[in-house]
Amino acid sequence: MATAVKVYGPPMSTAVSRVLSCLLEKDVQFQLINVSMAKGEHKKPDFLKLQPFGQVPAFQDECISLFESRAICRYISEKYPSQGNKGLYGTNPLEKASIDQWLEAEGQSFSPPSAVLVFQLAFAPRMKIKQDEGLIKMNEEKLKKVLDVYEKRLGESRYLSGDEFSLADLSHLPNAQYLMNTDRGELFTSRENVGRWWGEISGRESWKKVVEMQKSPPPPSA
Amino acid sequence: MATAVKVYGPPMSTAVSRVLSCLLEKDVQFQLINVSMAKGEHKKPDFLKLQPFGQVPAFQDECISLFESRAICRYISEKYPSQGNKGLYGTNPLEKASIDQWLEAEGQSFSPPSAVLVFQLAFAPRMKIKQDEGLIKMNEEKLKKVLDVYEKRLGESRYLSGDEFSLADLSHLPNAQYLMNTDRGELFTSRENVGRWWGEISGRESWKKVVEMQKSPPPPSA
Repeated sequence: MATAVKVYGPPMSTAVSRVLSCLLEKDVQFQLINVSMAKGEHKKPDFLKLQPFGQVPAFQDECISLFESRAICRYISEKYPSQGNKGLYGTNPLEKASIDQWLEAEGQSFSPPSAVLVFQLAFAPRMKIKQDEGLIKMNEEKLKKVLDVYEKRLGESRYLSGDEFSLADLSHLPNAQYLMNTDRGELFTSRENVGRWWGEISGRESWKKVVEMQKSPPPPSA
Repeated sequence: MATAVKVYGPPMSTAVSRVLSCLLEKDVQFQLINVSMAKGEHKKPDFLKLQPFGQVPAFQDECISLFESRAICRYISEKYPSQGNKGLYGTNPLEKASIDQWLEAEGQSFSPPSAVLVFQLAFAPRMKIKQDEGLIKMNEEKLKKVLDVYEKRLGESRYLSGDEFSLADLSHLPNAQYLMNTDRGELFTSRENVGRWWGEISGRESWKKVVEMQKSPPPPSA
């Protein structure tokens, strides 16, 4: 069977792994094409035609080319409604609105401090870049406030948008996974409901496959 | 006629004015209920039931209560497809995917540096807070890079997502309007295509009404 869907980018990227997780939830076959950020491939003219900001991932499916991981996840969920997890983006307008709301909360409130912490705590040491303690502290405080809201919400609801796992939960997996692998995992586990939620969402087969792909990324593109 | 839709928050807020602009484009009647942020009304228990992060806007329509301005705009567009601007969120899946992509670009790339600049250049002087020159310079550089991508895109396409004005363009209006009213307006006008685009989107009747509302906000809530 021909693979129509192409994802460009290294699976270690949080935005790339967000898209991979969605494709696996939806049982959509895909081809992952590595982009070496160390070699600056994401800033080369051919790649900029796919992703004008020079970021990953880029995505292609039949006649469409897209960027922005959360937009790609919405597209995949709507393009393949009857495959895989059918409720990933809701099954009616009210469910969908609730998912969009928490997906935006992830993008606007959870992701900014998390992304700073992931860079500072997980990537900076590997890249031999000095950590910025002030920046870490400030963003940890911001993230705590977000997780306090989540703690309350997840005491009322099994998942963020309602009773079912959705794109809103999925979108948190990449940054949360990196943080769980640092000494800041207790940001999640010290909060009873957040800890329970993290256990459920990170235990999904789709996400476990993404974590495996991060350990054994595809070979670089030609 | 009973007004079903309620928006809570001051129209001077960029996120509130994003929602107002969408409601006006869609010809949806609404009631605007002011929330005095100076009095801390957005942090009070009753308001936190509507918006758990203590931010504005909050939104209610019949049986749903929502927060996050871009999620509210998506909901309004899908709930009222045959009213007002029918193409605001696209008329087919490919248009919609392109709108989501550029709406995410606004939320993830344009908004973060713009919001810092709006606070530093427009609000800090009114609030007698000292401006942070280093922060201004850093975010101006970030915004320039984003606008360089927009300049190229808007040389190929009348609006960001395609030939028609959409939620993706609309979502830029609030922050761009504040920046145009500072001495940094040339960030937009010095770029030929961005300047042409700004003229078109800011000249829409819906947005002109929002700007009027910002000059004459509703009285404070009881």
